[in-house]
Amino acid sequence: MTQSYSAGIEKAVSAARETTPLVHCMTNTVVQNITANVLLAAGQAPAMVDHPGEAATFAQIASGVLLNTGTVAPHQVESMPLAAEAAVKAGVPWVLDPVAIGALEVRTALAHRLLELAPTAIRGNASEISALAGLGAGGRGVDATDSVEESLPAAASLAERTGAVVAVSGKRDLIVWDRDGETRALWLESGHDLMPRVIGTGCALGATMAGYVSIAPALESLFSDATFAPIDAKALAVLTAHAHFGAAGQLAGERAERLGSFAVAWIDALDELSGADIASRVNVTEASA
Amino acid sequence: MTQSYSAGIEKAVSAARETTPLVHCMTNTVVQNITANVLLAAGQAPAMVDHPGEAATFAQIASGVLLNTGTVAPHQVESMPLAAEAAVKAGVPWVLDPVAIGALEVRTALAHRLLELAPTAIRGNASEISALAGLGAGGRGVDATDSVEESLPAAASLAERTGAVVAVSGKRDLIVWDRDGETRALWLESGHDLMPRVIGTGCALGATMAGYVSIAPALESLFSDATFAPIDAKALAVLTAHAHFGAAGQLAGERAERLGSFAVAWIDALDELSGADIASRVNVTEASA
Amino acid sequence: MTQSYSAGIEKAVSAARETTPLVHCMTNTVVQNITANVLLAAGQAPAMVDHPGEAATFAQIASGVLLNTGTVAPHQVESMPLAAEAAVKAGVPWVLDPVAIGALEVRTALAHRLLELAPTAIRGNASEISALAGLGAGGRGVDATDSVEESLPAAASLAERTGAVVAVSGKRDLIVWDRDGETRALWLESGHDLMPRVIGTGCALGATMAGYVSIAPALESLFSDATFAPIDAKALAVLTAHAHFGAAGQLAGERAERLGSFAVAWIDALDELSGADIASRVNVTEASA
Repeated sequence: MTQSYSAGIEKAVSAARETTPLVHCMTNTVVQNITANVLLAAGQAPAMVDHPGEAATFAQIASGVLLNTGTVAPHQVESMPLAAEAAVKAGVPWVLDPVAIGALEVRTALAHRLLELAPTAIRGNASEISALAGLGAGGRGVDATDSVEESLPAAASLAERTGAVVAVSGKRDLIVWDRDGETRALWLESGHDLMPRVIGTGCALGATMAGYVSIAPALESLFSDATFAPIDAKALAVLTAHAHFGAAGQLAGERAERLGSFAVAWIDALDELSGADIASRVNVTEASA
Repeated sequence: MTQSYSAGIEKAVSAARETTPLVHCMTNTVVQNITANVLLAAGQAPAMVDHPGEAATFAQIASGVLLNTGTVAPHQVESMPLAAEAAVKAGVPWVLDPVAIGALEVRTALAHRLLELAPTAIRGNASEISALAGLGAGGRGVDATDSVEESLPAAASLAERTGAVVAVSGKRDLIVWDRDGETRALWLESGHDLMPRVIGTGCALGATMAGYVSIAPALESLFSDATFAPIDAKALAVLTAHAHFGAAGQLAGERAERLGSFAVAWIDALDELSGADIASRVNVTEASA
Repeated sequence: MTQSYSAGIEKAVSAARETTPLVHCMTNTVVQNITANVLLAAGQAPAMVDHPGEAATFAQIASGVLLNTGTVAPHQVESMPLAAEAAVKAGVPWVLDPVAIGALEVRTALAHRLLELAPTAIRGNASEISALAGLGAGGRGVDATDSVEESLPAAASLAERTGAVVAVSGKRDLIVWDRDGETRALWLESGHDLMPRVIGTGCALGATMAGYVSIAPALESLFSDATFAPIDAKALAVLTAHAHFGAAGQLAGERAERLGSFAVAWIDALDELSGADIASRVNVTEASA
């Protein structure tokens, strides 16, 4: 991994822990608890406000916002667009996680509507990203049926259309963004095979991305240095969220073999790992887009 | 335990792990997280879709469906019957878990309505099963005030009326079904005293039953062999779900003495135990109905 | 700590474990699971019933009720006042936890409405208690921006107006009540720095308070003894809930250093500690009001 990615990851982890970004999560009820504990372990602060009469107010107060369609309830269909609009107006970055879109009509329509409201970053598995880009039919519920490798054109298309950093989760993670009309893409190798078998590791990643993206302005100073030319501040923030998760998964896998204790060890590791530890445990390579 | 039950449990555990059934859970928000993690540990895949505009679509895609009335929200009252109808139409098995019915009017009416929609299996504690059969007033919230032993007539009545396999959870579990107008019943001895003190062990059982019942067709070949005469494929699937849970509870109890670490060890054990391990840790006896 | 507080805490812990109070929690979806597991570990029984057609019925059946505004959904805005009214009518004590009130309009209006319905006890952080008393603007989402020390006038004002025992959570916990027009206040020193970084430790405290407050009548006999003059039965119940949590946090901190394993160890400790253990691990002092 080039020195610049390592230094960037270290800087981003420190910046997040020092400022404790407040992340407004409108997410699915299956993963609310683990999402909140993950944020706390990663050095961020969670809050979950879904009521249509409150969501916009809180989106303006928060450091970053996550909109996740995993168990979309009728009142969330109403409140998520309000939160996205308020966030954009207030300059608060927000992340779209279009869980299980494709075959399911309500969330698919909602995700496409949200896509028009200027997300700062987008994450999903390959099937979700393809469906969001209009290039696929979606997966089997929350499971991807497409490969991450095949999703690069869809991710690039979304990045170009929206200006968002687009992350595709899989065995390797793909991070794609647009710079002056040119697609940039990175592969991240990290993590552990048990991670997808703990519920919420993907959804909590979207929340943690929202916190990291909120500290992107603090990373801008890095980029006056020519060594950081390959990456932009928001893309570095998204990369760091993935690296933090993956490195913690790797450490957890060294300490626990089965799902229950792995999940506990993973929270411990998110809390324990320094930025330097994280950078040393992951591998970043540039993808040809 | 007769050789046939052991061999059947082994076969069912393998069949589920090989096919990873996708279980659509419309369940209570208290237990969604543990239910999802339990399914993943047991070799199944969870998805939770509650919106009235999506529930029927997803019920047709899933391998099996769970409808659990534990924290029934207004939009679930609307969507659960849609899911049951869609499941039946698509040949997808579904499980009814009538949590805390009896005194509480909305869920009691809902459960009785769902009962008319051909559930494949039903589970509950003795008070819930009695209330569902119209033979009792229900318990103290989620706690049973009736004994499992006394619930046999109620379970038999439900099995006869609906054709469902009916399971009653307790110190010993009772599994009841109807074969050609004759009530069959088994007792399962397994588990550990701490299990009822971990929230969601019962509710997650309903979800896991939905996955196991979905692989019942793969078990049918067993029944050409005369040694399997005492049990039917769906009943074997329900028995296996209970055995998987109970055996994991027993192993967890060997490793942890207190509730927090017991819950973690139980997830580990669900993931770790082979079908043969499970069969060796439980005891099945035929009940006189 | 004076002997009377120790003896009172021991008595309250035993009384709760002997009677297993049934606590009806209308709480936020982020913490429902940990709340239920905490109640079970503390010797109580959880049930969560939110539907407007059921909430009042169940509030009358329960031993105690918790109303927590953390993720208030539209149907809860309707059902919480119904539950409070039914509880009061049936003589069932209830606890108000006005999570994140202040800037958020729906929950702030709801909490003020609930405040008129005779809560038995109130808990929150300093910012929430100040906002509820009309003496502050609320905090940063769920985080307090005021100090516990500064919240004494707000807590005293609420206690006087409503007759409730008012508890303010922080580094030290403050417990305030009114006796014959005179403000009484105690400081509790207990707990561990990691506790606020495990989601739900505060919200679960409100639930556990509801169970403890329900056994206050069983503690009344203590107060014929002049040594108990400094405290009232409901205040002792509230103090005991806090002491139980804090002592368990202290023990967990001796066993685990990181958030994931700390959370597990804390549930273990809630289950494990006797009343005498709890009393020996906390420090109570009288505050000058």
